[in-house]
Order: sequence, then structure tokens, then C-alpha cells
Amino acid sequence: MLKGLLSVLLVLVALSSTMGKPDKAAVKKEKRVPQTLSRGWGDQLIWAQTYEEALFWARSKNKPLMVIFHLEDCPHSQSLKKVFAEDQDIQKLADEEFVILNLVYETTDKHLSPDGQYVPRILFVDPSMTVRADITGRYANRMYAYEPSDIKLLLSNMQRAMKFLKTEL
Amino acid sequence: MLKGLLSVLLVLVALSSTMGKPDKAAVKKEKRVPQTLSRGWGDQLIWAQTYEEALFWARSKNKPLMVIFHLEDCPHSQSLKKVFAEDQDIQKLADEEFVILNLVYETTDKHLSPDGQYVPRILFVDPSMTVRADITGRYANRMYAYEPSDIKLLLSNMQRAMKFLKTEL
Repeated sequence: MLKGLLSVLLVLVALSSTMGKPDKAAVKKEKRVPQTLSRGWGDQLIWAQTYEEALFWARSKNKPLMVIFHLEDCPHSQSLKKVFAEDQDIQKLADEEFVILNLVYETTDKHLSPDGQYVPRILFVDPSMTVRADITGRYANRMYAYEPSDIKLLLSNMQRAMKFLKTEL
Repeated sequence: MLKGLLSVLLVLVALSSTMGKPDKAAVKKEKRVPQTLSRGWGDQLIWAQTYEEALFWARSKNKPLMVIFHLEDCPHSQSLKKVFAEDQDIQKLADEEFVILNLVYETTDKHLSPDGQYVPRILFVDPSMTVRADITGRYANRMYAYEPSDIKLLLSNMQRAMKFLKTEL
């Protein structure tokens, strides 16, 4: 399905590069692929752009917010992204029950780095605007880090973030 | 040429509807087009995602920052976007000399709304982190608004934002 989309994109790129064939001398740079807000974490999901926007949506939709800190040139981020994007349960839950945000740059909110700034790092924020520092991964020194093998733990943590909302609000 | 484009679009629509034909019962939602960071303001440009990120790049690259506030369902924003994306001088200057950010959600920084929050609205920020409230458009009641016919004024304002940098830093 994703492959289908990719090939459509490729057709598009091919089309657009042949249709508007400009004078080669005039073109300095290679054609760039437009940046996506998903950055590969789920092209079919609706991503918030900024933390402020995400908080607004979390509050107004009464949904928990999931914030993913990552870097394009970090191999741990890349490998986590791959399993995240391919995991149907995660994608479905993220799509239906969460406000989601992925960031390659830290925010000014220190609550989003309870044990430091590192990537990949996933924090949940309750619609009451409380950072869920209690929802952690497997590693004592980097409590909000996940490896690809932790993907089911992440799914379970997403379910915890949802339960909090229902029982305590 | 327009007809050509239209038929390409039709082909695309046809392609996307036949290629990824899923079991109708299983699929709840239509296939979404991935959101782009450019949001149509220049797919070939490199956009910052957040204001914090943009400020960081402005300072570290010593380039002025241009922040465009807009909304997807605002016809004034849409018509300005069209001329902005099609103006080669603007696109070239934005690409080479500016850090650029487009936002559909306000930041917490009040300096970015010197005369209120409205769209479309374009603010410049000097690499010294100073919001250039002096670089305004044509309208006294909405000083940072631009209409499509103001596109050359915007270009000239971009040049002003660059001059400041060179002469005063």
C-alpha cells in the first residue's frame, strides 16, 4: 500500500521533472524531495507541527499527546522509526487516539526532558497538560528511550497514556 | 498547458484510486497525502519546523528569519501562497539568504504579533534575535499583512531584512 503511494510519488517526480524541463545551465541545485511533517514516522498520520499546536489539540480533542524526539542522522532513531512506521497497531492507535508530534529540535519546555535531552526519546503528555514522566521504557539511564525491540512496550505505554485519561479525568 | 496539467491530475487520481485498491470493508478512511513542511509555500525550500528551531538556525547561520503565519482555510493566505510559491525571485532569495518558517498556529512569543494575530502575516527576525517590527507591508491596520499584489513589496522587504544584517551586525 505504501509502495503504491511511493510509486505514485515517483511517477509524479518523473512527470514534474520532464514537464517543466528548464534550461540546465540555469539550474544550480538538484530537485529536492519536499520535507514531510511525518519525517517517515507514519505518512498517513496527521502530525502536529509545533509543541504549542500539539498541546492545543491535546486539550481541545481531549486526547493524550505523544512527542517523539529524534534525529535524521541518528541510527537508533532511524531503526526505531522503521518499526514504528511499520507497526500497524501503533499506527492505528496513534491515528485514532493520540495527538502526535515528532521533533528534531528540543523545545523550551524542560518537562519534556526529565532525565536529559537525547534521541530517540518518547514522552507522553496528558490532555490536562501534565507530562507523563511515569511512563517509561526499559532503560534506567535513559528512561524515555526505546529500541526497535521495545516496540510492544511502546504500544503498551500508549495504552497506559490512554487509560490515565479515562480513569483520572 | 493547463489542460495538460489537468489531465496529469486526472491520471494521478485514476492511478491512486486503482493502484491501491483495498478491500472496501476493511478501510475506514481515504488515503491521505503526506503533509509537507512547506505546505505549498515552496516545496523546494528547506523549512524549519518550529520557531525554536528557526531561531537556532538564524543565529548559527547568521541569516535573517522569515516567519509566515497562515491558515489552510483562509482564502487570503491561499492566494498569497500561490504568488509566493510561483515568484522565482522570492523563492531564490528565501532559499539562499533566509531561514524560513511557516506556521498555522501562533507561538507563545508576543513579539511575533506586534499588532495582533491575523493571517496572512509575515514577520522578519534578525539573527540577533530581534523581531523586525519596522519591516511592514502596505496596510496601516494590519501592518504585516500582504496581498498577492504586494509580492514585490515583500521581495523588497526581504532585501531590507538582509541589509540590516550586513550593515549593523
